[in-house]
Amino acid sequence: MILEDTIVALASAPGSGAIALIRVSGPDAINFTAPVFEAKNKVSLREQPSHTLQLGFIKKDQRIIDESLVSVFKGTRSYTGENTVEISCHGSPFIQQEIINLLLQQGCRAAQAGEFTLRAFLNGKMELSQAEAVADLIASDNAASHQLAMQQMRGGFASEIKSLRQELLNFASLIELELDFSEEDVEFANRDQFQALILKIQKTLSRLIDSFAVGNVLKNGIPVAIVGEPNVGKSTLLNSLLNEDRAIVSDIAGTTRDTIEDEIAIGGVGFRFIDTAGIRETQDKIEGLGIKKTFQKMEQAQIVVYLFDAQKVKNDNLSLQQVKVEVEKIKNQFPGKPLLIIANKTDVLDPQLKAEFSSALPDVLLLSAKEKEGVEQLEEKLLQFVNTGALKSNDAIVTNSRHYDALLKAQKEINNVQEGMNIGLTGDLLAIDIREALYHFGSISGEVSPDDLLGNIFANFCIGK
Amino acid sequence: MILEDTIVALASAPGSGAIALIRVSGPDAINFTAPVFEAKNKVSLREQPSHTLQLGFIKKDQRIIDESLVSVFKGTRSYTGENTVEISCHGSPFIQQEIINLLLQQGCRAAQAGEFTLRAFLNGKMELSQAEAVADLIASDNAASHQLAMQQMRGGFASEIKSLRQELLNFASLIELELDFSEEDVEFANRDQFQALILKIQKTLSRLIDSFAVGNVLKNGIPVAIVGEPNVGKSTLLNSLLNEDRAIVSDIAGTTRDTIEDEIAIGGVGFRFIDTAGIRETQDKIEGLGIKKTFQKMEQAQIVVYLFDAQKVKNDNLSLQQVKVEVEKIKNQFPGKPLLIIANKTDVLDPQLKAEFSSALPDVLLLSAKEKEGVEQLEEKLLQFVNTGALKSNDAIVTNSRHYDALLKAQKEINNVQEGMNIGLTGDLLAIDIREALYHFGSISGEVSPDDLLGNIFANFCIGK
Repeated sequence: MILEDTIVALASAPGSGAIALIRVSGPDAINFTAPVFEAKNKVSLREQPSHTLQLGFIKKDQRIIDESLVSVFKGTRSYTGENTVEISCHGSPFIQQEIINLLLQQGCRAAQAGEFTLRAFLNGKMELSQAEAVADLIASDNAASHQLAMQQMRGGFASEIKSLRQELLNFASLIELELDFSEEDVEFANRDQFQALILKIQKTLSRLIDSFAVGNVLKNGIPVAIVGEPNVGKSTLLNSLLNEDRAIVSDIAGTTRDTIEDEIAIGGVGFRFIDTAGIRETQDKIEGLGIKKTFQKMEQAQIVVYLFDAQKVKNDNLSLQQVKVEVEKIKNQFPGKPLLIIANKTDVLDPQLKAEFSSALPDVLLLSAKEKEGVEQLEEKLLQFVNTGALKSNDAIVTNSRHYDALLKAQKEINNVQEGMNIGLTGDLLAIDIREALYHFGSISGEVSPDDLLGNIFANFCIGK
Repeated sequence: MILEDTIVALASAPGSGAIALIRVSGPDAINFTAPVFEAKNKVSLREQPSHTLQLGFIKKDQRIIDESLVSVFKGTRSYTGENTVEISCHGSPFIQQEIINLLLQQGCRAAQAGEFTLRAFLNGKMELSQAEAVADLIASDNAASHQLAMQQMRGGFASEIKSLRQELLNFASLIELELDFSEEDVEFANRDQFQALILKIQKTLSRLIDSFAVGNVLKNGIPVAIVGEPNVGKSTLLNSLLNEDRAIVSDIAGTTRDTIEDEIAIGGVGFRFIDTAGIRETQDKIEGLGIKKTFQKMEQAQIVVYLFDAQKVKNDNLSLQQVKVEVEKIKNQFPGKPLLIIANKTDVLDPQLKAEFSSALPDVLLLSAKEKEGVEQLEEKLLQFVNTGALKSNDAIVTNSRHYDALLKAQKEINNVQEGMNIGLTGDLLAIDIREALYHFGSISGEVSPDDLLGNIFANFCIGK
């Protein structure tokens, strides 16, 4: 597809830096830049070979705007698949603006968000799902989300979906061909083979749909509810964990006054810790509401961490029996949910009491958040709960909710087809459901891509990409 | 000068953007990058010709960190004058950090602020004053400051100073040679020629030192004091001016509660407007302090704008005679200072009153800040006061206070030399002052550059430049 206009935008982060990068793409990218760029070697940009860099002056009339480094990409061998010029200029916002204005005067149009990647997609440089991964890649803030985005950018499950779609398309054509010969009662499409294909598709869809649960939490951080009475040391524990990875901490304001959420990357995986109120039986109405909220949070979490104060046990204010009752309560409420039991403030315990703890609660993790003892073991335990096997084996993982949605819809249609075949539905009726399924498959890779869909996807990009 | 270590830093603005640029410079820039970069064409970075771009994968062990575009600059044909690699990666802060960490592991060192430009200077790619202009260029936020920085970066007055220094150095050598033959009373240095040189140097120094006043205000914005009673429409006027150039407005918090400062670019020149209190005679002590402050601000300003309310004249609350008295007061206080008299709110005036205004106050500018009438004329008048002739003619302008300081010191020493010659000082004593002058000249271009001076200069740069 040849797009007629040439677009320009700042591609590096906005603001002041040492260097800024301005991107120009379109049939006239070189034609529009050449007149305002005077290379030191006096050779016009038009004569420069592709994939080379030239130092020179960006000039507005006779005035020098900047001394810049300009790269040229000719023809389809560029990110967008069209002529591209990249200008490395000095990073003053004023200079950035002057150069962009100059190129607008030359005939460029200001690029919209994601428009360079949209062009890459329209010019067949990447599938739609790969293009979407570019935005995820730029937004990635830990190793797991980064790797998922990178995997999807390199193709991910798109090729799998594409080949299944092709097989389905072939059958659809044969079945529709039968309709032309309906009076002759012929079967071009071998029904056994078709059954086998439907089964294969159902299996793949199930796998991909299931992977979304993992993909989604890896992308957004695995929610971990921290449960325990006030003053058992939850905040101290959070701070101990934060210190390990200070740089990628982000404070997310809680949705309620009583819930503190913090995101931490441990071993490259994002964990979202949710601090909650206690869960003891109470007559107090307001406290009761807090407990209800706590149970909701535990419901949403993928992992529950139950914290109690070892010092209280030592001083006989709390019996290990009481702790066991609390733990059982949680286990009964959420049978399948991974639960970590932590005795905090164990730096005050003597070895005998420690042994007592471990025998009463076999899974207990002895920890001192204040002294940072046992924090590493907690991190290891958390990582063990994460099934990163899929990540390591390069198995396809669905992370994009648009893809998830399309897969669910395709699954529904394929199930309809399956059912239709079971009850001996005629080819013309089968064909309708198959077409629907094909549509949803196609919307993932972009083979079917209504304009409004594209608009929605690329509007979420940043300008310059 | 060959620097032994290889440095790395993010060169684009920090934060998230579509693309980020990472810069590597030093003898091992290519050696350290090659092992972690796998080009699509499988050719090692070491084999790539200089000034070319390669698409490929940045890899950490076998894991792909990013698909990046890598440029190679070999030998001295780079910004720093040493091997350089520039990596255009996806703009996620996570990816930026991963790539930088990878290069640190390879043996790079994290670059300090301004270290790339420091290397360009140390490797003889630019004079010290040119290097300093790079920081000014990045900080430039209007056409005038940008042009000054660009002029300085392209050499500015550095070459003039350099050639004067060379001439002076020749004489110094001859005079010092005389000392070796002091008993023979010879004069190798022709005293008349030396007088002529000293005169030439004095003339140049005076011109450059004088240019600093212009250069400094152009760089930092020309201070304009707006004087007038409360409610004459000063804020409205400021807002009208701001609307013209919304994008490059910056709010500078006033040093006192009563002074509002705002910077606006008009015709590419920065103006710093200082809103002040009134200046009428008063018995009130606090108001009296305000007036004292107003006079101080007028003293500091390069231009004074006196605003009065035309509506008050119309309603007979103010006579034109009173206005004239006020204006005379200002003129007497600051005889040489450009003064603009503005009658605001003239949209309520009938033509007859307007004519009356103009005959009573010939220089008055009729304006309605609210209706934006006359604002353009005001802008033109302001620009007329600015001597941009020097800018247009490419005359050297000193903008850097370090240079200004060095020029003042050189001037003092040269005057000492002049004086010494007048009173017939002996060569050995003359030589001391000449050496001092040479030192100050050399400190501008960097021919004399103690380490602590370099440290101070480059510490003000941003990282990555």
